[in-house]
Amino acid sequence: MTTMTKERTINGLDTTQLVATVDAIKATPALARFQFRNRNRWVDGGENHSTIRDFYGAGREDDSRRASFEFVNGEPPVLLGNNEGANPVEFLLHALAGCVTTTFVLHAAARGIRIESISTQMEGDIDLRGLLGLDDSVFPGYEEIRMKMDIEADCSSEELDELLAYTQKHSPVCNSVCRPVPVVVERVARRRGE
Amino acid sequence: MTTMTKERTINGLDTTQLVATVDAIKATPALARFQFRNRNRWVDGGENHSTIRDFYGAGREDDSRRASFEFVNGEPPVLLGNNEGANPVEFLLHALAGCVTTTFVLHAAARGIRIESISTQMEGDIDLRGLLGLDDSVFPGYEEIRMKMDIEADCSSEELDELLAYTQKHSPVCNSVCRPVPVVVERVARRRGE
Repeated sequence: MTTMTKERTINGLDTTQLVATVDAIKATPALARFQFRNRNRWVDGGENHSTIRDFYGAGREDDSRRASFEFVNGEPPVLLGNNEGANPVEFLLHALAGCVTTTFVLHAAARGIRIESISTQMEGDIDLRGLLGLDDSVFPGYEEIRMKMDIEADCSSEELDELLAYTQKHSPVCNSVCRPVPVVVERVARRRGE
Repeated sequence: MTTMTKERTINGLDTTQLVATVDAIKATPALARFQFRNRNRWVDGGENHSTIRDFYGAGREDDSRRASFEFVNGEPPVLLGNNEGANPVEFLLHALAGCVTTTFVLHAAARGIRIESISTQMEGDIDLRGLLGLDDSVFPGYEEIRMKMDIEADCSSEELDELLAYTQKHSPVCNSVCRPVPVVVERVARRRGE
């Protein structure tokens, strides 16, 4: 089994930078404070566009991105759209898969576990009577999200299971879904002419 | 003010189809049951790719998408990546913006409110000591997400405020974030050679 002392990069992560980052945060906890941002513009019907670029973190405004990331939300015809893009609840699954995967890979690297592959299949159940306001007893969000992860790595099954449980407890998106996060919505402009 | 009886399409949504959908669900509630899916594959470091296409809803497997949607999660250099894509917590903001916007547009159409524009700015705060496991008292998810929405429409400010409050209560992604949703993670394959 390859150990961290033999190679600087493990699972594509620079462990020297990882250790330096953790040490810097231990010395100055405020460096761990990040603020992520998004701008979104409605186009028509179920289509809207997001623009993501800047964020604050590690004590400064980030300037590493030379261009913005642009994403399109859409809806399928059965939900009154034209498949302009994946829909928002599908993007939530993408965010969740990515965060659990990256959190797993990060903590594997910190433990010296070398990952060969991770493939995840996920599904989430929603009853759209909640969205439509047809029954107040129906929860409007996902009732449950299931992730099935196929992971190959140079450690025992027990270590993988323990690391996966640790990952669930520490993944930012997983915890933003499985635990309540305040969402504050504010209207900032009055209607035209006021 | 234009009313629903004068035009079939409002806010880009076919209100005839909307009313027919609602009537069908009222008659057969099982039509409102949807299952959305995603497949994700780890590439390296903080990079992983999602593939989204099929879903179940309205009583059948959807076949409207002629190609898959593909999305790339990445991380910026300060988080040990190369900006391969937006990162998962940013995709969560995109999903949330899109869902609140679409839910608002949908219920505006149902009420005969014509929307001219919606622009949203959002930010979310995270303390990455949670992700890194450096302090168990730090919540790993977003501490708070704020959305500032600039909405222009042919109704009063009071109607917009009421509709926005209604939207928050019925948006699937908003409720998947501000209320707890079970996330079940299961490992489906043993390590190679077992």
